[in-house]
Amino acid sequence: MQAIKQRSWKTRLEAKEKRIENLKNITSSRIIPTDKIVEALEQLIMPGDRVVLEGNNQKQASFLSTALAMVSPQKVHDLHMIMSSISRPEHLDLFESGIAKKVDFSYAGPQSLRIAQMLEDGKLTMGEIHTYVELYGRLFVDLIPSVALVAADKADASGNLYTGPNTEETPTLVEATAFRDGIVIAQVNELVDELPRVDIPGSWVDFVVVADKPYQLEPLFTRDPRHISDIQILQAMMVIRGIYEKHQVQSLNHGIGYNTAAIELLLPTYGESLGLKGKICKHWTLNPHPTLIPAIESGWVESVHCFGGEVGMEKYVAARRDVFFTGHDGSLRSNRTLCQLAGQYAVDLFVGSSLQIDGAGNSSTVTSGRLAGFGGAPNMGHDPGGRRHSSQAWLDMMTSDDPLARGRKLVVQVVETFQNGNKPVFVESLDAVNVKKDAALATAPVMIYGEDVTHIVTEEGIAYLYKASSMEERRQAIAAIAGVTPIGLEHNPKKTDKLRREGLVALPEDLGIRRTDATRSLLAAKNVEELVEWSEGLYEPPAKFRSW
Amino acid sequence: MQAIKQRSWKTRLEAKEKRIENLKNITSSRIIPTDKIVEALEQLIMPGDRVVLEGNNQKQASFLSTALAMVSPQKVHDLHMIMSSISRPEHLDLFESGIAKKVDFSYAGPQSLRIAQMLEDGKLTMGEIHTYVELYGRLFVDLIPSVALVAADKADASGNLYTGPNTEETPTLVEATAFRDGIVIAQVNELVDELPRVDIPGSWVDFVVVADKPYQLEPLFTRDPRHISDIQILQAMMVIRGIYEKHQVQSLNHGIGYNTAAIELLLPTYGESLGLKGKICKHWTLNPHPTLIPAIESGWVESVHCFGGEVGMEKYVAARRDVFFTGHDGSLRSNRTLCQLAGQYAVDLFVGSSLQIDGAGNSSTVTSGRLAGFGGAPNMGHDPGGRRHSSQAWLDMMTSDDPLARGRKLVVQVVETFQNGNKPVFVESLDAVNVKKDAALATAPVMIYGEDVTHIVTEEGIAYLYKASSMEERRQAIAAIAGVTPIGLEHNPKKTDKLRREGLVALPEDLGIRRTDATRSLLAAKNVEELVEWSEGLYEPPAKFRSW
Repeated sequence: MQAIKQRSWKTRLEAKEKRIENLKNITSSRIIPTDKIVEALEQLIMPGDRVVLEGNNQKQASFLSTALAMVSPQKVHDLHMIMSSISRPEHLDLFESGIAKKVDFSYAGPQSLRIAQMLEDGKLTMGEIHTYVELYGRLFVDLIPSVALVAADKADASGNLYTGPNTEETPTLVEATAFRDGIVIAQVNELVDELPRVDIPGSWVDFVVVADKPYQLEPLFTRDPRHISDIQILQAMMVIRGIYEKHQVQSLNHGIGYNTAAIELLLPTYGESLGLKGKICKHWTLNPHPTLIPAIESGWVESVHCFGGEVGMEKYVAARRDVFFTGHDGSLRSNRTLCQLAGQYAVDLFVGSSLQIDGAGNSSTVTSGRLAGFGGAPNMGHDPGGRRHSSQAWLDMMTSDDPLARGRKLVVQVVETFQNGNKPVFVESLDAVNVKKDAALATAPVMIYGEDVTHIVTEEGIAYLYKASSMEERRQAIAAIAGVTPIGLEHNPKKTDKLRREGLVALPEDLGIRRTDATRSLLAAKNVEELVEWSEGLYEPPAKFRSW
Repeated sequence: MQAIKQRSWKTRLEAKEKRIENLKNITSSRIIPTDKIVEALEQLIMPGDRVVLEGNNQKQASFLSTALAMVSPQKVHDLHMIMSSISRPEHLDLFESGIAKKVDFSYAGPQSLRIAQMLEDGKLTMGEIHTYVELYGRLFVDLIPSVALVAADKADASGNLYTGPNTEETPTLVEATAFRDGIVIAQVNELVDELPRVDIPGSWVDFVVVADKPYQLEPLFTRDPRHISDIQILQAMMVIRGIYEKHQVQSLNHGIGYNTAAIELLLPTYGESLGLKGKICKHWTLNPHPTLIPAIESGWVESVHCFGGEVGMEKYVAARRDVFFTGHDGSLRSNRTLCQLAGQYAVDLFVGSSLQIDGAGNSSTVTSGRLAGFGGAPNMGHDPGGRRHSSQAWLDMMTSDDPLARGRKLVVQVVETFQNGNKPVFVESLDAVNVKKDAALATAPVMIYGEDVTHIVTEEGIAYLYKASSMEERRQAIAAIAGVTPIGLEHNPKKTDKLRREGLVALPEDLGIRRTDATRSLLAAKNVEELVEWSEGLYEPPAKFRSW
């Protein structure tokens, strides 16, 4: 036996106890005074620590990130930051000042140019770019945090947290840290005697600090119906008729965007006229989109499980608790980890969009000079090879008579053939290929791989890619709906006729849709005010969406 | 606007309140008296309800399942049961008596013959067979529970639960139910004034009942080293040398079995002699296998995240908290959902085994007449198409120079060419194909698809399937290591030589391994008593594993 017997097996616990001991001159309880937070972080965080800083595309631990940027780089430096989203300026200031050195992240939308520049200038070391759930998974494997800085709505004196509608990934970040002798620090909007409900038990939380103002929260999933175009309505009609009805889609996820907002607003009108209510689109995994209100009010929606909340939807959700997941207090309980799991494994269909698609159907939202990351789309926008249960829509994708054949998830891309500014969406080669070279990434940052895409919808028609029996046929089907883009110009009208006859391509007329019917008059709500009316005044849109 | 305005939007809450009101004559608190549980279930569960009954391959809500089987089928009938595992006789008695009608499940190992028979006899209706995480996902989409019957170690009077080392999927089952106005009933081993820690907040739990005896818990992951054969040691040497060292595997999951136990017990001996300590196998997602003790004591293991606990490992885990996820009370915190997520997305490699593998590498543990289900293997044993971050081992699987090429997860099957009883493992066609027909399943119950398998290891050698450039080459590589099975007999010695030269096949001698060195003397522990010694007496094996 060659065991090394002298080592301590609680070095993490000892380090934690020592840090907490150091804090005794600042607080003797779990509560850190608001004005002492910078000093407290200097005691609780050590150079080289792995620090999870909560911040995704919705809620941000903005008080704690601001405080972290104010610590002395002489005391706290070379941190390895783990962030779902790099979205606030101070997230990158940390690296400028030397407080932080390395970053693992999922999404960097608003800071994507600056991060690319800093990487080029050697001002930060990049770990990996993940989807949300990959990053959460690594928190339990090889990115176990030393410290977690998270945001909650309320706390009590025992450290129990109420995260309310924006529970999001807070429980997952806290669990990874708390159960490995890391230090959990939560900023809260207020300290109360009794919480509406407990979302995270106090025994998982080391310190609570009342923030100087509520955490930042963006209304990211609100789309004003005024901006929905006739083309988007045409596409939405094609999706409802040519995909949802055709494959009897029961459960689904919609990404952010006007394309999917149009679909949501057409269910109570066009969908109703097709007699589809109660037959399709019953179970949803998505945030509480205001544009889903008319479908909910019309009785289309049986259930919605949410990644996060949405600003202004709090009262509406609480009043529709048969549909949403809510606590006994009545407010939404979201959970990004579980919703991503459900969105991956438990729904029939994912709809997304993209800035570029190549001839084989690979797509990416990454464009030159930007390191935007992935968020959650790749997780939900692929055919999960671990799935074993079937559903009607899933089986409908089965085209082989191999005895081991199986179904697949419907992964739909809805795009117009040209972006604003007349840039073609369908391109010979994705910008992602160059970004890989420029940023020295190990692989090209593809959002959705062509082999996973079952349908592409443009203003020209639908390509039913799951039916293609060869790469050649797949390329032809994509070319047939790619308009006058470089890829579309390759299309052969005779071959397209054959593809239409064989059901690999459908134009609007093949689906019984007249282009002239695709007008804004079909929208169940034409503006935010009408969404508020549908909600019986329960939806309270943020000021910037109010025009009345 | 066509909204239907008259409906109530809290029908689920109203139904819940009415049921709880009905219970007033049994209890006025959260605590249901032990001897009133059958009567209480008759009040709380309604005909046709969707009921989640906790029971996986480890812990079982055995008191509640026994009680449910005792309710009056006149009062409670036609339930739709959702069970991770169908493993106790009363789980199927429910269907014999008419209390339950339909079942969705993941695993039915011990009851797999009876369930197949009952299905044939029309005594139960089958929903779908899932992996664990698919079933959890559906709890938030289209299998939202009305009632959850779960098991915990301890509760306090407020309903807070301590699940201790066997937290497993309890939080996930409770979250799906509690936040959709379902009723959560937890059996506990004891009621205490103060919990060691809170694993599930009391505001998520409606009722607690003290069970007449502790919940059933099986030591499923304990393998006595006495039963490890020289052939398994040879295979373990090949895995360490030809896969772990070759690809620099840092993070991994081991399934249950003597094959993987042999690998674990060879790390401190054979692995050490190769100078691999600190270079491979640092991060693990697996239950606290007793056979991992010598590797932990020798300093090989940086972290272990667990699906569940393991009987007898409680004190050892608590004393090694630098390695395991533990609460501030010192005991293990497992989480099946998060560990499956990590095992899917965050590790380099999965090792499993199988009863049958066909010529293309598809495998299944399903054999005729049995509906065993899947458990978790397909989730971890596939190449997750949603993964976007890279690791060295993952990139090592990249064989294409396509600009969009990516790496893949290492999925390894370790099998002997023949099972006990002289049945060949390598077969022309999987029994799963016939089971599909016999049980009228929508797809054949394949455990791991050939396209996902990167390596197969037998006593003959290793097939490096990720290098195969065609199905033909894949079949040849498998045939080369399939011994004298029907598949192996197809192999062509000249082609095998070519495959060896090109690195698609390696025999032990190609890896510098002498078959005569593969003996039990290499095991770091040769029996359970030696595991106890390695653990400094902290591991307390169940009586059936004690021979001293």
